[in-house]
Amino acid sequence: MRAEIISIGTELLLGHITDTNAVYLAQRLSALGIDLHFVSQVGDNRGRLTETLRKAWERADVIITTGGLGPTEDDVTREAIADLLQETPQVDSELAAVLTERYQLFSSAMPATNIKQAWLIPSATSLKNPSGTAPGWFVQNDNHIIISMPGVPKEMYQMWENEAEPRLSTLAGATIFTRILRISGMGESIVEDTIIDFIHLTNPTVATYAKSDAVDVRISAKAENTAKAREMVDDIDAQIRSVLGSVIFGEDKDTLASVAGDLLKKHGWTMSVMESCTGGLTASTITDIPGSSDYMRGGIVAYATDLKKSMGVPADVIEQHGVISRETALEMARASRLRCSSDVGIGITGVAGPDLQEGKPVGLVFIAIVTPETEVAEQFQMPGDRHDIKRRAALRALNMLRLALSSGSGN
Amino acid sequence: MRAEIISIGTELLLGHITDTNAVYLAQRLSALGIDLHFVSQVGDNRGRLTETLRKAWERADVIITTGGLGPTEDDVTREAIADLLQETPQVDSELAAVLTERYQLFSSAMPATNIKQAWLIPSATSLKNPSGTAPGWFVQNDNHIIISMPGVPKEMYQMWENEAEPRLSTLAGATIFTRILRISGMGESIVEDTIIDFIHLTNPTVATYAKSDAVDVRISAKAENTAKAREMVDDIDAQIRSVLGSVIFGEDKDTLASVAGDLLKKHGWTMSVMESCTGGLTASTITDIPGSSDYMRGGIVAYATDLKKSMGVPADVIEQHGVISRETALEMARASRLRCSSDVGIGITGVAGPDLQEGKPVGLVFIAIVTPETEVAEQFQMPGDRHDIKRRAALRALNMLRLALSSGSGN
Repeated sequence: MRAEIISIGTELLLGHITDTNAVYLAQRLSALGIDLHFVSQVGDNRGRLTETLRKAWERADVIITTGGLGPTEDDVTREAIADLLQETPQVDSELAAVLTERYQLFSSAMPATNIKQAWLIPSATSLKNPSGTAPGWFVQNDNHIIISMPGVPKEMYQMWENEAEPRLSTLAGATIFTRILRISGMGESIVEDTIIDFIHLTNPTVATYAKSDAVDVRISAKAENTAKAREMVDDIDAQIRSVLGSVIFGEDKDTLASVAGDLLKKHGWTMSVMESCTGGLTASTITDIPGSSDYMRGGIVAYATDLKKSMGVPADVIEQHGVISRETALEMARASRLRCSSDVGIGITGVAGPDLQEGKPVGLVFIAIVTPETEVAEQFQMPGDRHDIKRRAALRALNMLRLALSSGSGN
Repeated sequence: MRAEIISIGTELLLGHITDTNAVYLAQRLSALGIDLHFVSQVGDNRGRLTETLRKAWERADVIITTGGLGPTEDDVTREAIADLLQETPQVDSELAAVLTERYQLFSSAMPATNIKQAWLIPSATSLKNPSGTAPGWFVQNDNHIIISMPGVPKEMYQMWENEAEPRLSTLAGATIFTRILRISGMGESIVEDTIIDFIHLTNPTVATYAKSDAVDVRISAKAENTAKAREMVDDIDAQIRSVLGSVIFGEDKDTLASVAGDLLKKHGWTMSVMESCTGGLTASTITDIPGSSDYMRGGIVAYATDLKKSMGVPADVIEQHGVISRETALEMARASRLRCSSDVGIGITGVAGPDLQEGKPVGLVFIAIVTPETEVAEQFQMPGDRHDIKRRAALRALNMLRLALSSGSGN
């Protein structure tokens, strides 16, 4: 099955927005084992859109469009599909009823032109849109499928996952089950090399993705039903876990901060941070998690050296070992626990650059974790610029934290 | 002039990377007054790329490609352009010398296949790439222009700005000068409404962009030379400033944190933060600026209420006014100055959500700035989710800081 994506909207061609919809759909299609050959962006122009659809019709089995389903004159996706198939749109009474009800819900009168959001053509059935007014179209005609969805990412994701993908995979005679394993502390290329035998599989498919906060391994299985597909994913999941081990920190929507937070709650412990080169980013990442106030007491950004001392890092340790040292990181973690009255403390000190500090290289970072049960400290040499070093150091600290919390008696 | 962008790379069609190159080029073309009609993504496939180029040749005057200029078998952009124009690539001796020299610089032998990076066809001249090994192509043939650049964004931006855009605008009989005015404290739609007369101009063009940290107004003028174009931009710049006033905080690469940092250095003052709902994000944003250790002493993330007290916020103020109050924000700013021994202090307290706090609504935030010359405190109701509220509150704090520092005697 060959697919083509058409992203519709003049704002794309003016560079006002980035086409993240196509990236999402490309990933989903890849997991479905459907080959994506082309992605096109085209403006809100009926002629050019019809031309683009016609070209796609010639060379693809499945055409997926996003955008152009709104109620205004500029929204011409329905019109262009009708032009392509030479069919005439009609108001569908069920869709019209849903549309009217939705406007009544917000106590606003529906502009007359909006009725085109209740249109269908004979080849099309509708795709529900619980988050917006524009339903999608699922068109089947002459062994081709056209899936038309709104351009608003949240509406599109929901419609794809709940409405479009199930129909598409049923037509392909299969359902899909996907799980993402999230990895920290190992680079993408090493992950890929380590699980290369799995990456060559065709069903389930296994692929790696470098995200800003982790490396993702996506396992997708195609089977006659979800239970069977899930079983296939479980099998590969277990095999990959036995190879990769503790670098896997979570699944799907987990983040290092959410996983560390869950472990803290399990232990019944509170935490705090004293950070220097990360400048507040570690505390900020921890407090990104809703409910983090249950365990996060707070933190100290001890940027100036004398502030480290006044916040409880012994002056003689700094004099003997330097600010950028394993010993100072440990003392920062200990001082953090005392100053913030927390069970667990993190200490981070390093050189974010662009200049050397104490003659030590840019990217050198020491991180310490102190819990009621253990003390650990590690040295890292981080690549990249100031932003990269801050980001990597904060993530490393959270990874050390969740490892320290998992290895203890609480797990 | 009609333009078309072709982004090349199988990794795009697998959803492994997002096509940010097309967004950048769309913005640059819009500023040049060139109409972009289509963007296409195509994989590393010579046949499909040649087909896409042929279609673009039929309907556009300028074709811009990114990607596929590397040295491997997968990189087929040069081959496809040669196929399209039925020309034969030849090794260019100058390009070959540059290529060989570059490999010698890194003391590595050049693989034989890499010589294709020194290819040219009769219709093409080369575009320099100081950051990589692959030069670009600038092709002129039969009233069409093809500009081929590498897919690595950093290399592409540099090549576009220094090599491609000047040639393109010379051919269009003009040069372009662009300036961005950066705005904080006013939403994009109000900015647009306020300067709507300028947005209707055709030369200079004026457009607004909502960025995550500010609203940008981009002024671009086209003229016979740069001096004239700059003069036209200066004229509109002055008129827009007289309308928008102090919401404009900087130009081009300025950020709120860099501008506030420059003002602190001018005053010879140090600063610190005591923040609650932003959870460290304010300190982190300030320390994103290289050299911020010159003025940033540090900060306290006082997440738990008793930590606010132990860090110097008077208990009676919290009891009387609540944690989420103007008075507590002011006391946090004052305590921050004392604890961190800084000249300037910021205090931030609010409800990041998802739950109410003290019965106060999600998004309610109080921010205070205390300098040696002034004390200010403001109340905000921020829209959005937890992440939005954190981001908006940190930016508001920095905006209040730079306004407090500009209005004082130091400016």
